[in-house]
Formats: sequence, structure tokens, C-alpha cells
Amino acid sequence: MQISDSPILKAIHERRSVRQFMEAPVSRDLIMTAIEAASWAPSGLNNQPWRFAIIWDKALREALAALTRYANILQSASVLIGVFLDKENSYDYTKDCQAVGACLQNLLLALHSLDLGAVWIGEILKNKERVIEILKLPEQLELMAVVAVGHPAHRNQKSHRLPLDKLILLEK
Amino acid sequence: MQISDSPILKAIHERRSVRQFMEAPVSRDLIMTAIEAASWAPSGLNNQPWRFAIIWDKALREALAALTRYANILQSASVLIGVFLDKENSYDYTKDCQAVGACLQNLLLALHSLDLGAVWIGEILKNKERVIEILKLPEQLELMAVVAVGHPAHRNQKSHRLPLDKLILLEK
Repeated sequence: MQISDSPILKAIHERRSVRQFMEAPVSRDLIMTAIEAASWAPSGLNNQPWRFAIIWDKALREALAALTRYANILQSASVLIGVFLDKENSYDYTKDCQAVGACLQNLLLALHSLDLGAVWIGEILKNKERVIEILKLPEQLELMAVVAVGHPAHRNQKSHRLPLDKLILLEK
Repeated sequence: MQISDSPILKAIHERRSVRQFMEAPVSRDLIMTAIEAASWAPSGLNNQPWRFAIIWDKALREALAALTRYANILQSASVLIGVFLDKENSYDYTKDCQAVGACLQNLLLALHSLDLGAVWIGEILKNKERVIEILKLPEQLELMAVVAVGHPAHRNQKSHRLPLDKLILLEK
């Protein structure tokens, strides 16, 4: 089995965080397609604890950018997707965070497959309550991540992973 | 954009939990390919907090099966993949659980793309310390999930998701 034989394995390997974007506008249809794909993640008891906010507005993006050291990424993105845990639909914090992580990975893979670039910003969680206030969302929501999206300026980001013999602790 | 035009969107939509398996053995190469793909998930600071245990041994699978109400699934699977958080490589529990969730979604999508069936078992976390003991793993590991894998007996599992207007709370 060659990785290049499977478009899914290829996408999983080739997806990179994109932090520099072109100014070209992003189609709303593509964003909806990607969020819909994100929602097909698995969750415990199929509780689907993820919720989304889509932010195109420049002033609102500026206000969020001020809450993270990655301000320039949020400013240069065409659109931000806030991803939240709905605590009223939560049944187990650990499992719900995992489910939201699965949902985020679907979102990133879907955006990649649509030729968009994106980066998962977690550092903004240090100001998660401020994000809820600025967006005037109910307090039952907990910010899980902000995903910055745009047309990639380039795709030459490199990354690396630990070899399998460091990751597989036991085989029996 | 039709979902059927993109193999990645198609896989995200068509992947289902598989809970009934055929007896045919599963190739070790495919399991390694899927775990390697799983490791290409994103993580905060690229800390890669995920670790894996691969369990083919029938007696060991029986011992783990006794720890969950889904015993029959663990017994009938060809192989179990335990997925752990390495607490010594953890920097933020919420973000690390999300990263492990992204890794699990990669694993499930990769297995699906390799024509294998799998189900993410979270219910066994109620006995997570016992799993560590039975597998004789160090206590710095926290069980995050067990994924049961085999050749699917069928793929007629149905599922549903909330409509987008229930998931998108704000668009501005």
C-alpha cells in the first residue's frame, strides 16, 4: 500500500497549518461544506457537542486578534471559525474534548481538500471568556479553538513526526 | 461542489462505526499504515502526546473485553489499538485531549480508506487504570480510547447529524 494510492492518506499526510493567506475572498459555500463535513465526526453517545461561529466581519476579527499573540494570522485570514463545546450537551469533559478534536480534524481535512488553507489556533483559549463576551454568545459555550481560513499564500510549511517505534509502546 | 467529487469529503461522510467483524485476519502492514497516518494529526506546540498499544493476543483481548459492556465487540475484533495520552508530554489537558481526538479521527479515516472497519470505544475509560495494569504500561499513560478493528461484516450502520442551522450559532 503506497500512501499516494489513497487520496485520504495523502490528504492526512500533506495537510499543513497555513498561516499566510492571499487576499482573495473565500466562498461561503465552501465554508459551509467544510463545517458540514466537520459535523460528521464521531462523538460519545453521538452527542455532537460541537458548535460553530463564522466570522467574516473585519472589526470582529480585529477584536479577536487582540486576544492572541497570533494576531497577524487572524487579521490576514478571510474568515475565522470559532469552535465551541456546548456544555449543556456535554456528558464527559475528556470525551467531549476528544470529539471536538475529531471534529476539528475533519474541518481541517475538508478545508484542505477544498484547496483552502487553515490553522488551528489554541493559544487564544487563554482568553476564552473574552471571546464569548465579544461574540455575545451564551455562557454554556466553552471556546475550544479558533480556525483561521483563507486561500493559502504558499504550502511550503514543513513539519515532522516522531517515528512509529517511539509511539507504539506495546505490540502483543 | 459535490461531496462525491472529493474522496476526502466522501470518506468523512461515509465512515461509520463498525461493530461486527469477519474472522479474516488483518494485515499488520495496514495497521502500521493507519497508526502512522494517525500520528499526522496536529497538536499544540506539535507535542504529539499520543501513544499506542497494539493487541492481537486473544487472551489479552479477552482481559480487556471484561472491562467494558461492549465485550463482544472487543472479542470479535481482529486487533485492538489502545490510544493513550502521555502525561509526561502533556502541556494542557484540554488541548491534549483534543489533539488525541484529532489523532483518533485520522486513525478511523485511515482504517476506512484501507477497507477496514473500526469503532472508537470510550466507555472502557471507566476502567482506564485497570487497562494500564493489564497491559503493564507505565502510569504516566492515560487511556484515551480503545479502537477495535477488523474486516467489516457489513457497512449498513446508519447515523445522523444535527442540521447546520442548529450547529452554527453566529455568522457575522
